[in-house]
Amino acid sequence: MANGEQVMRNKQVLLRDYVTGFPKESDMQLSTTGTITLKLPQGSTGVLVKNFYLSCDPYIRTQMTKPLSDAPSSFLTFTPGSPITGYGVAKVLESADARFKQGDLVWGFTGWEEYTVINATHIESLFKIENTDVPLSYYTGILGMPGMTAYAGFYEVCSPKKGETVYISAASGAVGQLVGQFAKLSGCYVVGSAGTKEKVDLLKNKFGFDEAFNYKEEPNLDAALKRYFPEGIDIYFENVGGKMLDAVLLNMRFRGRIAVCGMISQYNLEKPEGVQNLMSLIYKEVRIQGFGVLNYYHLYEKFLEMVLPAIKEGKITYVEDVVEGLESAPSALIGLFTGRNVGKQVVVVSRE
Amino acid sequence: MANGEQVMRNKQVLLRDYVTGFPKESDMQLSTTGTITLKLPQGSTGVLVKNFYLSCDPYIRTQMTKPLSDAPSSFLTFTPGSPITGYGVAKVLESADARFKQGDLVWGFTGWEEYTVINATHIESLFKIENTDVPLSYYTGILGMPGMTAYAGFYEVCSPKKGETVYISAASGAVGQLVGQFAKLSGCYVVGSAGTKEKVDLLKNKFGFDEAFNYKEEPNLDAALKRYFPEGIDIYFENVGGKMLDAVLLNMRFRGRIAVCGMISQYNLEKPEGVQNLMSLIYKEVRIQGFGVLNYYHLYEKFLEMVLPAIKEGKITYVEDVVEGLESAPSALIGLFTGRNVGKQVVVVSRE
Repeated sequence: MANGEQVMRNKQVLLRDYVTGFPKESDMQLSTTGTITLKLPQGSTGVLVKNFYLSCDPYIRTQMTKPLSDAPSSFLTFTPGSPITGYGVAKVLESADARFKQGDLVWGFTGWEEYTVINATHIESLFKIENTDVPLSYYTGILGMPGMTAYAGFYEVCSPKKGETVYISAASGAVGQLVGQFAKLSGCYVVGSAGTKEKVDLLKNKFGFDEAFNYKEEPNLDAALKRYFPEGIDIYFENVGGKMLDAVLLNMRFRGRIAVCGMISQYNLEKPEGVQNLMSLIYKEVRIQGFGVLNYYHLYEKFLEMVLPAIKEGKITYVEDVVEGLESAPSALIGLFTGRNVGKQVVVVSRE
Repeated sequence: MANGEQVMRNKQVLLRDYVTGFPKESDMQLSTTGTITLKLPQGSTGVLVKNFYLSCDPYIRTQMTKPLSDAPSSFLTFTPGSPITGYGVAKVLESADARFKQGDLVWGFTGWEEYTVINATHIESLFKIENTDVPLSYYTGILGMPGMTAYAGFYEVCSPKKGETVYISAASGAVGQLVGQFAKLSGCYVVGSAGTKEKVDLLKNKFGFDEAFNYKEEPNLDAALKRYFPEGIDIYFENVGGKMLDAVLLNMRFRGRIAVCGMISQYNLEKPEGVQNLMSLIYKEVRIQGFGVLNYYHLYEKFLEMVLPAIKEGKITYVEDVVEGLESAPSALIGLFTGRNVGKQVVVVSRE
């Protein structure tokens, strides 16, 4: 190899083929035979990184589906045979972009592999990590995309007021646990739902929710919501969709707001469930607003100014579910859809 | 009768019983035997009126359903055996409220009968008619509740910008025909749908829509919308719900807005259709906002300042479907749900 260029093994997690229905480990493939030359390709304007932490997020499932002919152009999907891509924390080995230099720690879109060349498009949402006196893995969670999602969705989309009632589904997840804590800091009454007793305990005892319940033990979601919100819900932070949304619609208050962050209950269905109670919107003047974090990253500095001190002062806490090694990534991703993870699901590729 | 109090026949249209499914004429009953003493009852703080025009509106159907135990308190229903109530134009015969006097022309909530005592609650949404150089029946439509609905829904809820694309369902109806004309005045591209060729012609040739189509002739609503909105829809004014909303969701543009005014396709169903494409909200950051006109009447004077000159200058036109006599009211109301009316459905009770 000329000029001493180093050739390294590059383990990867590839998408085998488009997924239909519930994802299986066999939909992905661990490739251990690939190599990479640790140098940016000739003419690249990208950044070569070594990956440390990868983020398992429910939205990844939506990119494993064969795109419909009428899909909006903003709807990205993976390519079978190529590595899964997603958020991660990495170290810059070489940079052709003046904003990054060798040795920088960064978070943003990277690949499910040991080394990645991040191209010019994805550099636009690559952030340099300036604060390293917190766990680096936090940049896949509370200090990364899920944190910004919680912040933008709660403060920008829901316009919370002190004393309002807030309901969060999938409340112990990467985003939900933060929305609940933000809502408490804003003086709201906060109830969350999750799918195990352990998670319900976390919500009440660790994250300080006023109430929490196990939705799997509720034969009637409408009745459960009426129990916790006798006066109705002002703000619903929507992470699950389907039947839960239908029950929530019956319990919204006048001029309530629903921020639609995700609909995890729907991602594995070939045909989404129908939502029937949309007429509730009319009489109660409810607003439902979809949002994507990509359009709120201009608020990232402002977000850090709020959340970094809150972490250091112990006013906000964060629970991660960390698994070791790229080999564990497929099952960790699938675990999101059975609710196996407790807190933010992180995969460690390397610690240095 | 003491003091020369006049006793008059008072024909009424009564609700026979709560309605399930599609309403029938036999769900209502014309009573021709009742009488009324033309004097406010002792201690009344209301207004006695003679009704001239009654307004047939789709929302009336929702008040004919037996209220569910979990219905919001704002959800009003009629009482079997009592007259239907709704918007109308009337003349004040006697008033115990200082804001109205004998001889005033008014519009607001009244009864489906010849004479009505409007009680104190309903007086709060009773408007004195100051401008009589337009057809009085317009106060059931363009200058009344439907006009304010179109105005509030389009300008306040949808925040239109010049050059945006606007789609309106039930577009030749009391509200839709106005939304389309407001959107043209705002410099938008406007497409409407309706259920007959006659209505489609009206939309294009009388109301100045850019395009219009008969939804009953479209086997695939998604394909129809893609034909008229190759670049997608910025604003959807929702009057019908169900399948139409599902097709629209697939065709909304980034940060598009949906004002939910009504869902006429759902009012006669025991169980509403499920809407499946709500995941479109997330990627496209679409906002769906329900609204009710009752909370926008503070804008009525501002609205009149815009719309009265526009009517007189011929910049806005309005089509009414007028039937004669209280006897015709039940079939006129039912006709809304088969699309029999062409334009705003009005019932004449008396012309003076």
